[in-house]
Amino acid sequence: MKKNILLAPGPTPIPETVRQALAEPIIHHRTPQYRAIFAGVSERIKKVFLTQNPVYTLTGSGTSAMEAALVNFHSAGDEVLVIESGKFAERFTEIAKAFGLKAHVLAVTWGEAVDPEKVREFLKAHPAVRSVCVQLCETSTAVLHDIKALGAVTAATEALLIVDGISGLGADRLETDAWGVDLVIAGSQKALMLPPGLAFLSVSEKAKKRLAQANLPRFYLDLRFYEKSMKDQDTPFTPAIGLVIGLAKALDLIETEGVLNVFKRCEQLGEYTRAQFKALGLEIFSKAPSATVSAALMPKGIDGEKVTNVMRDEKGVTMAGGQGALKGKIVRVAHMGAIRKPDIDEGLRILAETLREMEVKVG
Amino acid sequence: MKKNILLAPGPTPIPETVRQALAEPIIHHRTPQYRAIFAGVSERIKKVFLTQNPVYTLTGSGTSAMEAALVNFHSAGDEVLVIESGKFAERFTEIAKAFGLKAHVLAVTWGEAVDPEKVREFLKAHPAVRSVCVQLCETSTAVLHDIKALGAVTAATEALLIVDGISGLGADRLETDAWGVDLVIAGSQKALMLPPGLAFLSVSEKAKKRLAQANLPRFYLDLRFYEKSMKDQDTPFTPAIGLVIGLAKALDLIETEGVLNVFKRCEQLGEYTRAQFKALGLEIFSKAPSATVSAALMPKGIDGEKVTNVMRDEKGVTMAGGQGALKGKIVRVAHMGAIRKPDIDEGLRILAETLREMEVKVG
Repeated sequence: MKKNILLAPGPTPIPETVRQALAEPIIHHRTPQYRAIFAGVSERIKKVFLTQNPVYTLTGSGTSAMEAALVNFHSAGDEVLVIESGKFAERFTEIAKAFGLKAHVLAVTWGEAVDPEKVREFLKAHPAVRSVCVQLCETSTAVLHDIKALGAVTAATEALLIVDGISGLGADRLETDAWGVDLVIAGSQKALMLPPGLAFLSVSEKAKKRLAQANLPRFYLDLRFYEKSMKDQDTPFTPAIGLVIGLAKALDLIETEGVLNVFKRCEQLGEYTRAQFKALGLEIFSKAPSATVSAALMPKGIDGEKVTNVMRDEKGVTMAGGQGALKGKIVRVAHMGAIRKPDIDEGLRILAETLREMEVKVG
Repeated sequence: MKKNILLAPGPTPIPETVRQALAEPIIHHRTPQYRAIFAGVSERIKKVFLTQNPVYTLTGSGTSAMEAALVNFHSAGDEVLVIESGKFAERFTEIAKAFGLKAHVLAVTWGEAVDPEKVREFLKAHPAVRSVCVQLCETSTAVLHDIKALGAVTAATEALLIVDGISGLGADRLETDAWGVDLVIAGSQKALMLPPGLAFLSVSEKAKKRLAQANLPRFYLDLRFYEKSMKDQDTPFTPAIGLVIGLAKALDLIETEGVLNVFKRCEQLGEYTRAQFKALGLEIFSKAPSATVSAALMPKGIDGEKVTNVMRDEKGVTMAGGQGALKGKIVRVAHMGAIRKPDIDEGLRILAETLREMEVKVG
């Protein structure tokens, strides 16, 4: 039987207790039983966000929460600054444009983190900018941005700091409140160890003040409905009940380990992964490594796309290749959620084997 | 142990094979394995819609597909006609208004189906109306609208016919293509026997022509992305992988029975349910009964809310009460999806028992 080792930066493997919960007979959502579960996870997930502000649960892909972060806090023609350092950053720009916002782009070389001073200068030169959009971990380049420093920059301005933690939340330490992050976006299928289908958004007091004034059109993603429903331990539209129930089990695992220990584990596993990449003779792509995912450059003349395809289709190990401009050039290994050292060891062994088959000399 | 009989019009009970599929280890979505599954269900679900046009799968509540049906095919200021015969119809009006459309409302007495002639007259008097929005089954009143007749009305005009089949699709026979329905909206948690979290939208050729011109802002729900991705057997944003895999199992069940047999079964079970309501001495609320759900008026002086709460909390049977203006006045029993006669018999027995405990004389 072929292996089935999932090392892509989402979806990540789902623990047994969570999978069992997903198979339970469904319950109705407008019941005290479900409301208690939903209220519980809505409260408990705050500890993963390191926030005391509300965290709203949307039924959707992570992108739905990115859109919610823009459409609920801006009005037509508002200026936003997007720190573009990879494929997922570009999505902020696309959403902003689709809704008639003026998106300034601060382009950062792929593989590098943004220099917070440049953001400070940009905001000084463009005081009308209403929000700064950035990734916690830019999944496509395995770069961790310095959110703490960015928070210090935006805190001194009227601008909100919007952080896409879709891949990074729960792996890369993000101190939402302490660092002054206004909106944090997350997805279910990464460090939260669930199937995809839920997205999350935390909202600071500073952001909340904008909710009523923002005039961009929205309905399904209108947080005013979610805020109102939350008072009844409910969501405005039928939620992905099974995933919410699974989330309770995933949070059990995170709480048992301790969320700070989870961050530490992911960080150490990331360091280990990058050390192993180097031991194979591979260069690390990201100059600002993340606890979520690490990327290794493929040797010259080797098509990374082919490497990941062979590994997946012939050897049962799923790593991610490069996206956009990095297609074929890197291989990415996630070290978050339920991914553990034995999976990474086996994955890297298969990577080495595959490279050798392509006549690459590996360490 | 308390019973756990779910007779609400969604979420409905999930068959064993589907639940098992939900508990399987997750697979990555950008793989040939997932693409084949997604392409398969995208093709097979057309048979439930009775369409040859594409059916797009969204990760979201049913409301996300209602919004998609409006924002992708209209431009700012466009006029739409909403046939309002219950709580879910009102949602069309709210979405339309949120996006700056001019929503005309054709109010229909709750419990009755719309008179297609009135729609014809309205469109004649308002030739600028771009779309007519209506429910297949208005879940809140258990009313089935005459979609075939409405399709004949809109086919003679430029207006699109938008049918919300969130509760009805797969239970009430809807001949999407033959009846000239342009957009059909569905949800996963009703007759498709899945947990909530997926929404579906079929798009006719007539509707498709509008997609490029429509200027309402959208991104997460922009069908142009979904159309493009479908060519690669893919979705633009990370899909609810587990639910799509579960859908394949649900479609197995529907195909084994035969979709026309499924419609017939739901219809017969609906007739049976209403006959049993009458045998208990209860009056049927809907003057246009549906194969999806049936509603019985509660006897004078009896709080239907209390009836359903007692049944649910003390006896383990979940029926739905009334919504909006019907709160406390009706009890609703669904007869779609995996709900079968023994569940309905047991549910009705418990309903009779509960009413007797409230000193109602039941047959």
